[in-house]
Amino acid sequence: MTIKSLSLKRKKTAPHGLSEPTDLSAYRRIVVLTEGHTNPQKAKTAIGLLRFRGGDVVALLDSQTTHQSAAVALAHDVDVPIVTSLADVSQPDALFVGISPAGGRLPPAMQGAIYQAAQQGLDVVSGLHDFLVDDPALVDIASRTGARLIDVRRNGFRETAKHASFREGCLRVLTVGHDCSVGKMFAALEVERELLRRGADAKFLATGQTGIMIAGNGVPIDCVVSDFINGAVENWTLANQQHDYLLIEGQGSVTHPAYSAVTVGLLHGCAPDGLIFCYEAGRTTTKGLDHVPLKPLTDLRNLYEALAQARNECEVIGVAINGRRLGPDEAAQEQQRVSAELGLPACDVYRDGPGVLANAVVALREQVVD
Amino acid sequence: MTIKSLSLKRKKTAPHGLSEPTDLSAYRRIVVLTEGHTNPQKAKTAIGLLRFRGGDVVALLDSQTTHQSAAVALAHDVDVPIVTSLADVSQPDALFVGISPAGGRLPPAMQGAIYQAAQQGLDVVSGLHDFLVDDPALVDIASRTGARLIDVRRNGFRETAKHASFREGCLRVLTVGHDCSVGKMFAALEVERELLRRGADAKFLATGQTGIMIAGNGVPIDCVVSDFINGAVENWTLANQQHDYLLIEGQGSVTHPAYSAVTVGLLHGCAPDGLIFCYEAGRTTTKGLDHVPLKPLTDLRNLYEALAQARNECEVIGVAINGRRLGPDEAAQEQQRVSAELGLPACDVYRDGPGVLANAVVALREQVVD
Repeated sequence: MTIKSLSLKRKKTAPHGLSEPTDLSAYRRIVVLTEGHTNPQKAKTAIGLLRFRGGDVVALLDSQTTHQSAAVALAHDVDVPIVTSLADVSQPDALFVGISPAGGRLPPAMQGAIYQAAQQGLDVVSGLHDFLVDDPALVDIASRTGARLIDVRRNGFRETAKHASFREGCLRVLTVGHDCSVGKMFAALEVERELLRRGADAKFLATGQTGIMIAGNGVPIDCVVSDFINGAVENWTLANQQHDYLLIEGQGSVTHPAYSAVTVGLLHGCAPDGLIFCYEAGRTTTKGLDHVPLKPLTDLRNLYEALAQARNECEVIGVAINGRRLGPDEAAQEQQRVSAELGLPACDVYRDGPGVLANAVVALREQVVD
Repeated sequence: MTIKSLSLKRKKTAPHGLSEPTDLSAYRRIVVLTEGHTNPQKAKTAIGLLRFRGGDVVALLDSQTTHQSAAVALAHDVDVPIVTSLADVSQPDALFVGISPAGGRLPPAMQGAIYQAAQQGLDVVSGLHDFLVDDPALVDIASRTGARLIDVRRNGFRETAKHASFREGCLRVLTVGHDCSVGKMFAALEVERELLRRGADAKFLATGQTGIMIAGNGVPIDCVVSDFINGAVENWTLANQQHDYLLIEGQGSVTHPAYSAVTVGLLHGCAPDGLIFCYEAGRTTTKGLDHVPLKPLTDLRNLYEALAQARNECEVIGVAINGRRLGPDEAAQEQQRVSAELGLPACDVYRDGPGVLANAVVALREQVVD
């Protein structure tokens, strides 16, 4: 079944209008484009899609890699084949651009595959700052074939925040961290899954391109006009407050030289009751900015809590350790060390599962709501 | 002399392209459009233009007011006539939209005057989020008459911040505050003027629509895509680091429910050496959000310093009191009270002039640079 047979297929958006609200969760045979970028450092979106929508991904597309398996190329435990041409995939229903580089530019090497997909009438989904709909030649192709060009980051949020009150029974937990790419989306999704497994009414709120591609919708927070960033998050949170637990995907870091604005807008927009602090053990300098040392965890925790409390009673309730640089014994030591240092429950979600953090979230709910 | 005879008149920008860098300081016969909004609460941009570019403003345009004088209508000490029609102004060279409402929407009542100006071939300058160039009918008129449509907030900033090093001799001072509209632009401009008067090489860096209309250029920070807000400020600061003193216009407040993202992006982008703290005496709740009490000044100071120091050694060096609600005796008492409370030099710039703050800036330079 291709996507064309689903109700998701709607009237094409005018190239210069804003996209209609889009639910990306209906695609079932996704090809993920990682052309020239099929490695664990660059294919962050592809890895997220494999982990959390592995059943909907049928292949990675990369004509330049020597690998034939995503598991090998990305050191990942979910596997799909890597194909060198779209023609090698049977009945795909969308092409998702599988990278999320800083600055959000579309690598020129990816253009050919995107054009080819649109020529076949295949929907193309991209989370880059370079919008598909800003390429007139591509728009022209899509208008002839009926392919939809979906720019996940494109948005029309234009409301300022109003310091709204949220439903009392809606507990909001945001993941924050000491840097980019330490596992904030991962921790939020895993805690959501664990709470759902326990029968709770939990929802993950996506705020970044990969999270939106996984959840199907969300706020592309880093592409909102800055006057409306707090408001976009506030309104999205209000729109989901019927749930008992919101697990909100964090972004950046409050001290990140480039992304602190995004981080703070998100923090004040969703007015969390609790924070899960995420960090990568052994990382000492800022991702992509090696001349910028990371701050001590305690300083960061204090800064997050002071900022959050300007809006709502809030504290850090647990720590998600990213232990990918550590061996098993080191990871166990790190867990004990950081838990003692911060006086908080801590776990490596990838190794240990999210149970400890889900417990902390449930305990917070008992304290705040019940 | 109309603007058409100046070199400022350039090739018209394509309506869907980004504006070229524009210097708005060359206009000499500006009509300020305040249609239906000629009062001190709503005509914030008009008041800023009158105070700091009074010599270039020839009239306010408002067909709905009963006043004929800007001084009376705006309780301001610079006066120009209020006209009810563009036809009443001799040889204007531009129409500037003179309001800056939250949310940035263009009031429908202003459309007629803008169309009329464009029909006359007059350049139109607007700082609203509703862009002039997004109105196809207006673009069509302008393309026939040669009028330029200049959207001050429209920008193409697309670089993330790099935690750059600034020239050691370039002292950066940012104005911050407890809320919106407390005098941050005013304090920065007045200190710039005082330093220039003393023969120093000082420059005001505009970050908001009114500041940009006064200075001629700047970063429209609240309209930058949020991923690039820190970067836009960092690059604009680097581009001006040949000056010895940069007085950077602050925005919002670090605890403002709607604008904290903008505030923090600005703070981390310009990496200030010193902060001037601005507040309005007697204001207890957030502007436009009466249900949100303002935080104690000491808490705000601590939060600003903690955030600023994440990027650069920095502290608050002085306080600018906005004493518009106070009588002369109350103002003197407030100055003594707040100076003692915070242990900092303080003054009401409007009443007392900016000398005390300029002294604090010079003293900071001696400490940091010399």
